[in-house]
Amino acid sequence: MSIITLLTDFGTSDSYVAEIKGVLLSRVPTATVVDVTHDVPAGDVRAGRYVLSRVWPRFPAGTVHLAVIDPGVGTARRALAAQAGGHCFVGPDNGLLSGLPDDVRFVTLPVLRDASPTFHGRDVFAPAAARLAAGARLDDLGPPVADVIRNTAAAPRVVESAVLGEVVYIDRFGNLISNIPKDLIRLGATITVGETTIGLVRRTFGDVAVGMPVAYVGSGGTVEIGVREGSAARALGVGVGAVVAASRGRTS
Amino acid sequence: MSIITLLTDFGTSDSYVAEIKGVLLSRVPTATVVDVTHDVPAGDVRAGRYVLSRVWPRFPAGTVHLAVIDPGVGTARRALAAQAGGHCFVGPDNGLLSGLPDDVRFVTLPVLRDASPTFHGRDVFAPAAARLAAGARLDDLGPPVADVIRNTAAAPRVVESAVLGEVVYIDRFGNLISNIPKDLIRLGATITVGETTIGLVRRTFGDVAVGMPVAYVGSGGTVEIGVREGSAARALGVGVGAVVAASRGRTS
Amino acid sequence: MSIITLLTDFGTSDSYVAEIKGVLLSRVPTATVVDVTHDVPAGDVRAGRYVLSRVWPRFPAGTVHLAVIDPGVGTARRALAAQAGGHCFVGPDNGLLSGLPDDVRFVTLPVLRDASPTFHGRDVFAPAAARLAAGARLDDLGPPVADVIRNTAAAPRVVESAVLGEVVYIDRFGNLISNIPKDLIRLGATITVGETTIGLVRRTFGDVAVGMPVAYVGSGGTVEIGVREGSAARALGVGVGAVVAASRGRTS
Repeated sequence: MSIITLLTDFGTSDSYVAEIKGVLLSRVPTATVVDVTHDVPAGDVRAGRYVLSRVWPRFPAGTVHLAVIDPGVGTARRALAAQAGGHCFVGPDNGLLSGLPDDVRFVTLPVLRDASPTFHGRDVFAPAAARLAAGARLDDLGPPVADVIRNTAAAPRVVESAVLGEVVYIDRFGNLISNIPKDLIRLGATITVGETTIGLVRRTFGDVAVGMPVAYVGSGGTVEIGVREGSAARALGVGVGAVVAASRGRTS
Repeated sequence: MSIITLLTDFGTSDSYVAEIKGVLLSRVPTATVVDVTHDVPAGDVRAGRYVLSRVWPRFPAGTVHLAVIDPGVGTARRALAAQAGGHCFVGPDNGLLSGLPDDVRFVTLPVLRDASPTFHGRDVFAPAAARLAAGARLDDLGPPVADVIRNTAAAPRVVESAVLGEVVYIDRFGNLISNIPKDLIRLGATITVGETTIGLVRRTFGDVAVGMPVAYVGSGGTVEIGVREGSAARALGVGVGAVVAASRGRTS
Repeated sequence: MSIITLLTDFGTSDSYVAEIKGVLLSRVPTATVVDVTHDVPAGDVRAGRYVLSRVWPRFPAGTVHLAVIDPGVGTARRALAAQAGGHCFVGPDNGLLSGLPDDVRFVTLPVLRDASPTFHGRDVFAPAAARLAAGARLDDLGPPVADVIRNTAAAPRVVESAVLGEVVYIDRFGNLISNIPKDLIRLGATITVGETTIGLVRRTFGDVAVGMPVAYVGSGGTVEIGVREGSAARALGVGVGAVVAASRGRTS
């Protein structure tokens, strides 16, 4: 059994995603193809990288993750395959595959002359993903490369009185997801986002009244700010990049 | 072969659904995971229950149905697994699993301490669904429980001159789906919804002119009101809960 | 391994697509069911036919393609199954299955009395697709029929100074996809759409500045007009049916 996940910004209303699946299943008919999402905002490499970072560790070792957020398709940007943490990855060299485990190795994929210059997802990346799913070794796919574009998210900074991070992703519910990991916050820490003080870190939405903002450790392991049965992004007027601060609280 | 269906209000643009699929496939790599929908309106348990009630009987016996419309996630609401009609079900104790066949049996699922308080879909329900799909018996998952929240839809009432029901669901085409089963209407019955008389029950949309309202027995076996190539919800200004009446017509 | 693709205009928020998948998996539990898209504009047979024409050749021979864009459901329009190019197809007789390879053969499907008049996708087409996926021969499904509705797209015309075609599809990015195949354009051809001259045919979006229109050979093998990081449909105010002209250029 081989599993291939698929993450794109192609949407689901056109033929594009299904063309990729046809290529995959033509070459590995027994593969299980799993949609991660196709609704990453067009060209938003940062959002795609965040979603990928949450999803891939949940899959079994050996899974091939095909990720195509590729505004530079058809230009000189390179095509990559990678191996890290026991998983395989395929995608463009634009930072989308940043942030993989330290054992990551990259190779560059050949771009054949008959590949459509606007659809490497189908003609370059999918065939490579299929080869990996069929058992090819990473080194069979192309020559190793070290100087890939690494565009990892900023790490939070610990200053005297606070941990300073930022909003790195906003989900469809309007929850503001920060890059402050739970390990950096202490009991009694108070969260602020932009100019707004949210309050203590709670356990879950149910700990505040309907319509009230709430800070909590989200399911990705970092501090999030939500509004119970509402949208924090809309209520607070805040977007990706807004400063999130956690006061140091008290040592437990 | 084990089949797991997945019904949520998580949308498809974030990582959440794929994280669940990763958990399922990590534990049962050969499972066939089928999306029912992830676009139930956020927190709308009633809509989720309706969709589930239409879908599960179409699947083969032994299918596991994972349903997560869970506005109370992380609170004291219980987590359930159920067996009914030869199928298995997993979801929160909030009425979502109401309306299953009479042979239904429920157990409560343990909530481990390391489960994210905001994402029981991934950390509580998906592992339980995977165990059932892998062959565990319902009683292996937790202790039996009887007093679950049963929040079944109102049944239609038969009065002297009419059957009185209500709109229980509106589909994306704007068709108004009532709870009046075809067995309760007679030949020559006239349908009204809210203040509007629709007319006799027809066979299908093609029986009226484009833009006209039409009552018919829908594919779920109950009376529906639609507008040919239009939206009845918009044309009639009617929502879930609106009264639908079928005159008794004549005995055939 | 049998593969069944699914192309509809049902959307993904209701129970309809999952009901079809339940029917398919009840009859062929080992089938791989692949969503093409369910977001074809409601009743838009022409768009559905275009998407199908791009997708089916990418799948392996033997795949069954179930396509349900069916505004005439429940009327006298016939239900079809077809075989062409080593693939099988199931859908309504309204032109959706036009444009298949020359070896196409059609049969009509029986419509059983208990089929819902509004949901042949579930009750007529899905059972037929399942039979084909399980190995039935086309002729097992119904009597052959020759006079199906053939509603193929207009072919481009070659006039003295230009090739004249039209926009046949607009994708979700707003790219205008024409019916002018790359074989009909020569080096140095200039593209116009409606009243707007776009310029020479380029290789890819990256060949023009952000926000500028660009003509290129799309991944479907025909001339397309896009706007780099924008929507050509919106920028040019052009829809399906707009005239696209390629000047004859020079013989290479």
